[in-house]
Amino acid sequence: MTDVIGYAAMEAGAELQPVNYQFGALGADEVHIRVETCGICHSDLSMLDNQWGLSQYPLVAGHEVVGRIDALGSQVSHLKIGQRVGLGWYAGSCSTCRQCVAGDHHLCDSSEQTIVKRAGGFANYVRCKSVWAIPLPESLDPATSGPLFCGGITVFNPLYISGVKATDRVGVIGIGGLGHLAVQFLNKWGCHVTAFTTSPDKKNEIIHLGAHQVVETTDVDAIKSLTRSFDFLLVTVNVTLNWAQLLDTLAPNGRLHVVGAVLEPMAIPAFSLIGGQKSLAGSPLGSPATTALMLDFCQRHDIAPLIESYPMSDVNRALDRLRSGKARYRVVLTAD
Amino acid sequence: MTDVIGYAAMEAGAELQPVNYQFGALGADEVHIRVETCGICHSDLSMLDNQWGLSQYPLVAGHEVVGRIDALGSQVSHLKIGQRVGLGWYAGSCSTCRQCVAGDHHLCDSSEQTIVKRAGGFANYVRCKSVWAIPLPESLDPATSGPLFCGGITVFNPLYISGVKATDRVGVIGIGGLGHLAVQFLNKWGCHVTAFTTSPDKKNEIIHLGAHQVVETTDVDAIKSLTRSFDFLLVTVNVTLNWAQLLDTLAPNGRLHVVGAVLEPMAIPAFSLIGGQKSLAGSPLGSPATTALMLDFCQRHDIAPLIESYPMSDVNRALDRLRSGKARYRVVLTAD
Repeated sequence: MTDVIGYAAMEAGAELQPVNYQFGALGADEVHIRVETCGICHSDLSMLDNQWGLSQYPLVAGHEVVGRIDALGSQVSHLKIGQRVGLGWYAGSCSTCRQCVAGDHHLCDSSEQTIVKRAGGFANYVRCKSVWAIPLPESLDPATSGPLFCGGITVFNPLYISGVKATDRVGVIGIGGLGHLAVQFLNKWGCHVTAFTTSPDKKNEIIHLGAHQVVETTDVDAIKSLTRSFDFLLVTVNVTLNWAQLLDTLAPNGRLHVVGAVLEPMAIPAFSLIGGQKSLAGSPLGSPATTALMLDFCQRHDIAPLIESYPMSDVNRALDRLRSGKARYRVVLTAD
Repeated sequence: MTDVIGYAAMEAGAELQPVNYQFGALGADEVHIRVETCGICHSDLSMLDNQWGLSQYPLVAGHEVVGRIDALGSQVSHLKIGQRVGLGWYAGSCSTCRQCVAGDHHLCDSSEQTIVKRAGGFANYVRCKSVWAIPLPESLDPATSGPLFCGGITVFNPLYISGVKATDRVGVIGIGGLGHLAVQFLNKWGCHVTAFTTSPDKKNEIIHLGAHQVVETTDVDAIKSLTRSFDFLLVTVNVTLNWAQLLDTLAPNGRLHVVGAVLEPMAIPAFSLIGGQKSLAGSPLGSPATTALMLDFCQRHDIAPLIESYPMSDVNRALDRLRSGKARYRVVLTAD
């Protein structure tokens, strides 16, 4: 096997530097992917900085990969050498547990994550189990599609599993890498879309993406006026919000769904759930089957991430850009 | 109109005493009910003691009524004088708001509660809007059926609206007035039923009611061994539990549903929801249509509350019995 060149942090928070490593023999159910592009997600920062206590160094992050299949394990017959695929947060699942056999590979009892105890996509090659190498339709642009495989599916999955209806009034909280895709999905889903942002200067762009109204997340009066408004609220940020007030903005039978992993426990008044028959849910990414449905949906409706592109060798500058909070809306690395 | 004789608290926590009052002219859409029996619910205690800050005195509690229709408003044509009906927590809804026209009268924007700013069922007569006077099938025993109209529908509704499946593994936390009905419902629903109780001396009785296993709520090791076990967990108690640990006992896609209105906010770790695609929900009672379905279900499966009966004039002794925590499982007053 050829040497792999990746960009690794040698310790928490350190600048990335080029490193060489090898993956060893290709497993029977594995796929070896030559990386073309790799988006940068906030979870990459959390892992590089060891915010979740899961990190092992040297750490090669990157889990929004688009690339072409370079080699296939002996048991993989449904993919072809040279085929373009995407790879997200999950790189492996057992295929035999109750969740896997039901199609919920993302809830596998023993799932493997692309950048946890594995080398990720800030590299020229990356590996995964074949079920997680999701074919990218040829009409989708490889330069921009990487973020669909983490940010995109993370916000598409809640709409799909929760049965969000075209008649629903939906709010999206946080219009960044995830939220700007959620707004696009929901507009084409047929919903009335309200975007909550702390950056009012994004307003015109967010309207252009498909929101019907834009509200400042800090505007307490505006939020109060939205009491009993929403059938579904999608929280993409990972900070503590006024959960009781947000639950008040839900209509009866309304649902609050979080995909941003805020570390502090959420303070949820039972009365806020009981009175209006409301719920609070969370979810991680989505299954391979749902990811494929999302790609179909993107094709049909011309949905794509808005990105800022950096060469892979400029990964440190790209990370700084993401940390600045100014990226619109996703930073993507391109193989040099 | 005849004088009504009810049992009222003159101030928070006071012993009840007989009082006379009149309801005035019967509204066009109202029903005047002669009370035969009335169950006592923990919400009656909360209202008598003004724990929710909603109480106005003199206060006549009682919202698990079975009785016969004594008089009908001029517009009520679907009920008959002498017909036996039940009345629960809700006594009125507008019939015109979005929820009402969709059949969710229990989520009405301007619902009226039987014992909030109204005189309830600890009396010889009670009143409600006709939609909330739910016909009691003649085969159900009026002596025991009162608790179905609050305790019963409160635990039946979550199973119905959440689409609990016969193949689900379900836990019920708290086997009192509500929980002992939930266990009966779930057994006939086809589920595997685990009962959590703080009273292990109830074990044989709970098994007889339909539980497949009984776990002590305080047995931390037993609860740990149930990690990833449940598809649905129904919390009927109104005390703070170890919510993070309970969420851990849910299988992927599992749902925690609370109907006990614990006053302290619930501390919910976002990670506990996100990782396994879990949810937390609440609900208040159920709609008139769902209540009718519950009564059908009770008929078909011989489900009835287990009660301790007291004459209405002994209401203070009956309240003490409920407060003692020893009642098995519901206290019901019978008209003298």
